[in-house]
Amino acid sequence: MTSDLKNKHLPILENAVKALHERRFFAQYPENPMPDIYGENADKEGRERYKQHLNNKFTELVHDGAENWAGQEESPYEQQPLGIKYPYFSAETLVERADEAFHQWRKVKPVDRAAILVESLERMKTRFFEIAYATMHTTGQAYMMSFQASGPHAADRALEAIAAGYEEQTRFPEHMEWEKPMGKYNLKLNKSWRAVPKGIGLVIGCSTFPTWNTVPGMYASLVTGNPVIVKPHPKAVLPIAIVVAEVQKVLVENGLSPYICQLGVDADDRLITKELAENPRVKLIDYTGGTEFGNYVESLPGKVTFTEKTGVNSIILDSVQDIDKVAQNLAFSLSLYSGQMCTAPQNFFVPETGVKVGEEMMPYEEVVKKLADAVTGLVNNPKAGPHILGAIQNPATAARVKEAASVKGREVLSTCDISNPMFENARTCSPVIYEVDATEKESFSRELFGPIALIIKTKDTDQSIELAKEMAMNYGAISCGAYTTDEETKEKIMDEMSLAGTPVSFNLTGGIYVNQNAAFSDFHVTGGNPAGNASFTNPEYVIKRFTWVGFREPVAG
Amino acid sequence: MTSDLKNKHLPILENAVKALHERRFFAQYPENPMPDIYGENADKEGRERYKQHLNNKFTELVHDGAENWAGQEESPYEQQPLGIKYPYFSAETLVERADEAFHQWRKVKPVDRAAILVESLERMKTRFFEIAYATMHTTGQAYMMSFQASGPHAADRALEAIAAGYEEQTRFPEHMEWEKPMGKYNLKLNKSWRAVPKGIGLVIGCSTFPTWNTVPGMYASLVTGNPVIVKPHPKAVLPIAIVVAEVQKVLVENGLSPYICQLGVDADDRLITKELAENPRVKLIDYTGGTEFGNYVESLPGKVTFTEKTGVNSIILDSVQDIDKVAQNLAFSLSLYSGQMCTAPQNFFVPETGVKVGEEMMPYEEVVKKLADAVTGLVNNPKAGPHILGAIQNPATAARVKEAASVKGREVLSTCDISNPMFENARTCSPVIYEVDATEKESFSRELFGPIALIIKTKDTDQSIELAKEMAMNYGAISCGAYTTDEETKEKIMDEMSLAGTPVSFNLTGGIYVNQNAAFSDFHVTGGNPAGNASFTNPEYVIKRFTWVGFREPVAG
Repeated sequence: MTSDLKNKHLPILENAVKALHERRFFAQYPENPMPDIYGENADKEGRERYKQHLNNKFTELVHDGAENWAGQEESPYEQQPLGIKYPYFSAETLVERADEAFHQWRKVKPVDRAAILVESLERMKTRFFEIAYATMHTTGQAYMMSFQASGPHAADRALEAIAAGYEEQTRFPEHMEWEKPMGKYNLKLNKSWRAVPKGIGLVIGCSTFPTWNTVPGMYASLVTGNPVIVKPHPKAVLPIAIVVAEVQKVLVENGLSPYICQLGVDADDRLITKELAENPRVKLIDYTGGTEFGNYVESLPGKVTFTEKTGVNSIILDSVQDIDKVAQNLAFSLSLYSGQMCTAPQNFFVPETGVKVGEEMMPYEEVVKKLADAVTGLVNNPKAGPHILGAIQNPATAARVKEAASVKGREVLSTCDISNPMFENARTCSPVIYEVDATEKESFSRELFGPIALIIKTKDTDQSIELAKEMAMNYGAISCGAYTTDEETKEKIMDEMSLAGTPVSFNLTGGIYVNQNAAFSDFHVTGGNPAGNASFTNPEYVIKRFTWVGFREPVAG
Repeated sequence: MTSDLKNKHLPILENAVKALHERRFFAQYPENPMPDIYGENADKEGRERYKQHLNNKFTELVHDGAENWAGQEESPYEQQPLGIKYPYFSAETLVERADEAFHQWRKVKPVDRAAILVESLERMKTRFFEIAYATMHTTGQAYMMSFQASGPHAADRALEAIAAGYEEQTRFPEHMEWEKPMGKYNLKLNKSWRAVPKGIGLVIGCSTFPTWNTVPGMYASLVTGNPVIVKPHPKAVLPIAIVVAEVQKVLVENGLSPYICQLGVDADDRLITKELAENPRVKLIDYTGGTEFGNYVESLPGKVTFTEKTGVNSIILDSVQDIDKVAQNLAFSLSLYSGQMCTAPQNFFVPETGVKVGEEMMPYEEVVKKLADAVTGLVNNPKAGPHILGAIQNPATAARVKEAASVKGREVLSTCDISNPMFENARTCSPVIYEVDATEKESFSRELFGPIALIIKTKDTDQSIELAKEMAMNYGAISCGAYTTDEETKEKIMDEMSLAGTPVSFNLTGGIYVNQNAAFSDFHVTGGNPAGNASFTNPEYVIKRFTWVGFREPVAG
């Protein structure tokens, strides 16, 4: 069956490898949830399938020998438990099963592994809507983001990792006859090389993007021959449980052990992440989440780690053509999923001398007001606000927004509850904006997760750049937005932010936002600053998961 | 001038990239020191140039502001100081100058950097004989190895790093128009990407292979835009000083700062390595040397490190066609440069039931005697012995050989001085062989640097494989030699040793040895066990030296 899969999916794989190098727009999985693409009843059926999971055991995963059933998810929209229970296994059981499966999986050829994994994405595609509802009711994302981020965008990021891993493992020949002229005779050796997987991979998920941030590491480890234990955030299990179940089914259909890809949930009374991470047989760890735990992961000896931690993302305002369009764009970026994206902007650097608008200088105060008004207008628009904001995943985030005055700044915009037309119990809050001075570094030197913006009054654009760079180098940054109509300033921003390993989006207005990163084109997180050491998906992200080992022997005769 | 260099050297570069992927035999720099290749007087002139350095200041390196002149080399062949003094700069001065040069070098395009670096290798080529004599009289290598390892083989390894770095930095487009269909309109972004160098690179050399083990890291960091400080071992400076001087000359000729590549020697009264390594502006460290210091280097926070430490290399004897040929091959491998190669075998696993020779079993004792006799025959052959053994670089190594009985084994072969026909004062000793039982793991669980072999009596070949794998996984291994005529055993050895990240050479006899690794074909050190985390030259070796950073902006209009 594997060779059928290989023939079936090689075109997808080859397209994906090509796309990786061209970096044009490419999507294997359409982001548009329209019926003409995904089928007339896809949405309705997905919603029903989601509902069937509620208050039930999730039995799709291989669960023989389950030591217990655990689950503690609750919907940020309904503030009610989902009541779904997943099979629980001890860390020791998970590792033992992975270790056994390792010796089967590592002997499957890279191209066959890739084909099996692509097949699992094709299966996942049939469940995008179900995953979307699962994502809404665990993360608080709005419907459209839930569909796109957890469905097609995640699947494209997974395909990207598969393609990169496949390419890197086939970049050197399997066999070669090496023939060295020695004068009177030639020395001949048969040489061969193997891409040897490192061992068990652990993938630690986060609560806000349970598939998007998990599948790249999961598929990168799998395609390079490593068995994987996916440890989801206890509050966001269902979306990735569905994906893992699909992978297991494809493995079993192809005569392989389902333990090549396991879901390892926390027990209801304790977290098992550290136990898994510290197990000496776990060689690879992918992690998305807070900085403190991320630093712990990176410090573990004898592991190869891939982290996405937190960052302090900056907006640099220097000069613009149309301030209203800019303010609207920024208001959207700040409000989208209530600032719970790792790419959401936080620090807005505005010179005290103001911002050049067209040919004239707009005073600082007026720029600040434009931003605040744009946010107010957006969140209070009943047709847009609730759908952009979504809900707040974690009560701690809502509390942080309400207590943001502790940053010791002037309040420019206070928060308010935004009622959601579909979920009266939704946990919401609108963005707050505080104004601080450039000298008060401690106020803006840390991530304030959630819809919290700081406007930092600087002496001039040079200081804005300097501070944005310093924040990124010292505390990490995943995105940066800059507005300038001056070519020299633009080059300076590119040069300085490149040294801080931070991608920059210039002069975004209209339907494209600093938060958005496209698979096959935008590297997500650069690995070049404390926000994380991994990048979706550059070659480093896959090649550190295996070792090239060579063999040689004189040619007989 | 740069663009001339680019046109001149692009063919070399493209050939080298092609060779990296084909992994056939390829050498840009011929290893044969014959006059018809390198010129009638090349040897004589190189020797004279070497002699002119003795008891002199080495002024070829940029030395303005030298704070002192330092040097403490001595010849293992003459046991006399060379009296060469190199410009000394404090760590602070070196780092400051590198930091300044960084901002010039990082703006040079990868292809131009590569061309400049290839030019430096072409200049190095004109000094291969001078470097050979410098290598002999610092490392104790014999003439032929000194020429080949420090000259053409090192230059090929450097070219390999340049080629890999050039390829990786040009694998993604510099610019691309990204166009996403949005239904009614297309979203268009201009995107661009930069390979941003990490910062200052430090390359810490060793005393036995001062150019071969230094140039890969040095050129890998340079081609990826990082300035480099080369910190040679205080006992082996001259060979690499010549290379650094040539790089500096080519940089200056091309209008660039010589501080892009600096030599940082230790002061006569103290070592400056830690001061350099711990400087926060040093971002990359390449290291060759002992395990203890290597572990320290790897533990430094905020650095990307590439290490080659020590290993316990194994020979597995199962079954052979011709035991005499095998014994001769192994005797040579053990004796070559008196076991001072990181690839030299140490642990010889022989089953107590003996080794199958042709169709018959040869008893264990007889196999041991064959090995000992082959070593004795080789080292006592006045036409071969001294030229294979060379001299002992470090008096501590000679002492270790004489005290090797402390391994608590039965002495199979004791050491003796071998007189060198050209250097009556040469520091020499012939290999010792001890026999230990497989149960006495502590005896063979560490590297015994120098010409020390242990014959380990095992129950059977399965135990030999198990122990060789265990040694490699726990203590590192850079090479493994295995002799078996059985296909199943061969596959088992490949499989098990691949999990220990150890390359295996099978059934070597005649003119090819387990110690030898060819550029563009054999990956040197896999990175997959404690012997080191770096491999010459796989893609990982270069891509960790820079960060991909992307920029994007809506297409105007």
